[in-house]
Amino acid sequence: MTEVVIAGIGQTEVGEQWEISLRDLAYLAIRGAMEDAGGLKPQALFAGNMLSPNLSNQAHLGVLLADFSGLEGIEAYTVEAAGASGGAALRQGYLAVASGMVDTALVIGVEKFTDKVGPSVEEAYSTTTDSDFEAIQGMTPGGQAALLMRRYMYEFNVPANGFAGFALTAHANGIGNPNAMFRKAIKSEAYAKAEMVSDPLNMFDVAPNADGAAAVLLTRRDLLPERLSHPLVKIAGSAAASDTLALHDRHTLLDFTAAKLSVDRALAKAGIGLADVHFFEYHDAFSIYAALSLEAAGFAPRGEGWKMAGDGSISRAGRIPCATMGGLKARGFPGGATGVYQAVEAVTQLRGNADPSIQLNGAKIGMVQSLGGPASTAVTHILERI
Amino acid sequence: MTEVVIAGIGQTEVGEQWEISLRDLAYLAIRGAMEDAGGLKPQALFAGNMLSPNLSNQAHLGVLLADFSGLEGIEAYTVEAAGASGGAALRQGYLAVASGMVDTALVIGVEKFTDKVGPSVEEAYSTTTDSDFEAIQGMTPGGQAALLMRRYMYEFNVPANGFAGFALTAHANGIGNPNAMFRKAIKSEAYAKAEMVSDPLNMFDVAPNADGAAAVLLTRRDLLPERLSHPLVKIAGSAAASDTLALHDRHTLLDFTAAKLSVDRALAKAGIGLADVHFFEYHDAFSIYAALSLEAAGFAPRGEGWKMAGDGSISRAGRIPCATMGGLKARGFPGGATGVYQAVEAVTQLRGNADPSIQLNGAKIGMVQSLGGPASTAVTHILERI
Repeated sequence: MTEVVIAGIGQTEVGEQWEISLRDLAYLAIRGAMEDAGGLKPQALFAGNMLSPNLSNQAHLGVLLADFSGLEGIEAYTVEAAGASGGAALRQGYLAVASGMVDTALVIGVEKFTDKVGPSVEEAYSTTTDSDFEAIQGMTPGGQAALLMRRYMYEFNVPANGFAGFALTAHANGIGNPNAMFRKAIKSEAYAKAEMVSDPLNMFDVAPNADGAAAVLLTRRDLLPERLSHPLVKIAGSAAASDTLALHDRHTLLDFTAAKLSVDRALAKAGIGLADVHFFEYHDAFSIYAALSLEAAGFAPRGEGWKMAGDGSISRAGRIPCATMGGLKARGFPGGATGVYQAVEAVTQLRGNADPSIQLNGAKIGMVQSLGGPASTAVTHILERI
Repeated sequence: MTEVVIAGIGQTEVGEQWEISLRDLAYLAIRGAMEDAGGLKPQALFAGNMLSPNLSNQAHLGVLLADFSGLEGIEAYTVEAAGASGGAALRQGYLAVASGMVDTALVIGVEKFTDKVGPSVEEAYSTTTDSDFEAIQGMTPGGQAALLMRRYMYEFNVPANGFAGFALTAHANGIGNPNAMFRKAIKSEAYAKAEMVSDPLNMFDVAPNADGAAAVLLTRRDLLPERLSHPLVKIAGSAAASDTLALHDRHTLLDFTAAKLSVDRALAKAGIGLADVHFFEYHDAFSIYAALSLEAAGFAPRGEGWKMAGDGSISRAGRIPCATMGGLKARGFPGGATGVYQAVEAVTQLRGNADPSIQLNGAKIGMVQSLGGPASTAVTHILERI
């Protein structure tokens, strides 16, 4: 079996990047990843992007980014799977290198929410739901999350502040991440007083849309330049699964079936068990998704994932540290770049290069999971320091 | 090396399909491919689509199609590379199966130009050019082709009817293809009198936008069901390359460099030479692209590809039959489905299942090439009967 390693990582700050265009954002991350990989050049580029055809009137993005980054001639594609576009691009890059047909693959996730030229962000974002049956009725991704959260609170008797810990943990960790959008702790009083976005979802239950780009350069271990100085991280497991796109088509509403499938398969491929995973970068686009992802992965029984937010389980010293660099909530949610940010952050932790305030001690195996919609797409990767 | 075979093919008629939705079109092709493969089910789905986020307000299409086709749970993505989206999806499916990580991959190309809910087709289609530097100035894909055609005619002294043979050949072959949009021959007088679309590009130089879906089911040879009755076709070579997205960034205007690169690499992977190729499904979105593709592949010297249109070289009995089932011009141009249609048609020829009026005798090796923009993306596959 070909061993696929992450030779380089790059990222931009996450936030409202009014002065930087879509292609410039991507270029900064791409340059960073190539430099970090000792100048290694990719043969293929996989661009994870969610909304650029709508928000920036730009399709054919893969080639644009290859061209603009001076990588003219290499094969290049856009991979889209809503909020999981970054994870999906990582999966394609992994498969390409694993096939032996491509030696080095650059995975770039990029999203530009501000400075848009197209429709409203909410309108564009809603194209990721079932357009004919959901969006057309006014459904939005936030609306879907609110429905799930309401049902979850009813079904499992969750108090109003039951999800507060997800945001508190994310914001506490975000302080140590120089690229995070929010580097400020929040208090449970602030959560309790926060304005509703879509009842019962309040402002702190929702990760902020943001601009940003992140990149990883993948290659086979035997092709690595000698002069790489950083510890090496490999992709030990990679798997993806899907669920119904529309919520109303689900067999059960509160099971992230695709998330579970992808975790089980990724662990099996890596030949490890859940107990071997030292930290988990989940897709906390909405706090309810964090709870459901913890349950789907098997870290908590059904209906009890929310308790992990409050009892310290997911904090740095807890049983399974989550959102260790701020997660989607505090690092920000740069759409299709998100899944690549997760990989970049996990590699940073595994190399021991995180800020001391958030560095995990002795972490050797991290799990990253990228979701599209209410886990309609779930892509899970197991990253391991070698 | 894993041998990747095309176990099943499916397609819908190409044309204005007012009564059939995007998802229904895709389903018909998917069902066809699975039936043709003896009921084999895919583990992964790669959807080639160009404009659905704009024209149909539908992103996250991969999962929608998996879900709607009863393939719930499998991994699913959208792959986009403008007009080459279908070829790009085929390449991803190929890499996935070649990696050994995915046993069976369904590649579905689908596009729905009619019954759109978004912006005008021309506006949407122009998002595949460089939006910030080309589309914003009013450039369109047809405008790009017209610029190249004018320059080519000037540079190589091509007469006004120099490209007529491309349309004539395509329409002559389209008669024998029951799924073609146009099944009617045209005469050179009609070409000479045709209305200009973008001078010097006339109506018959432009492939018509159309609705349609095509699918191929890929697997490893050793996983094939016993009961498959049709002759088997394998993917002997697969390669892709890129060029600048914007025309004004090209080093030379009349070289389809990416097309050349992808052909050379695909032939090398297949271990054959150009002379071993029995027919060529080129991407004749515009007749000038057919000429430039013939030159890039090496079938004609620079500046002489257009001559092959008139001297019989590309007809059924010619040196290198092209557009054997009508090509983009007569079968129609269903955007991101196009590259998959080419594969389906090549398999039909290689199996010997084409209508007797267009069946090639003894064809064993076919080359299909999918282009995005003016060969900004080029994906080439070599298909071989085994």
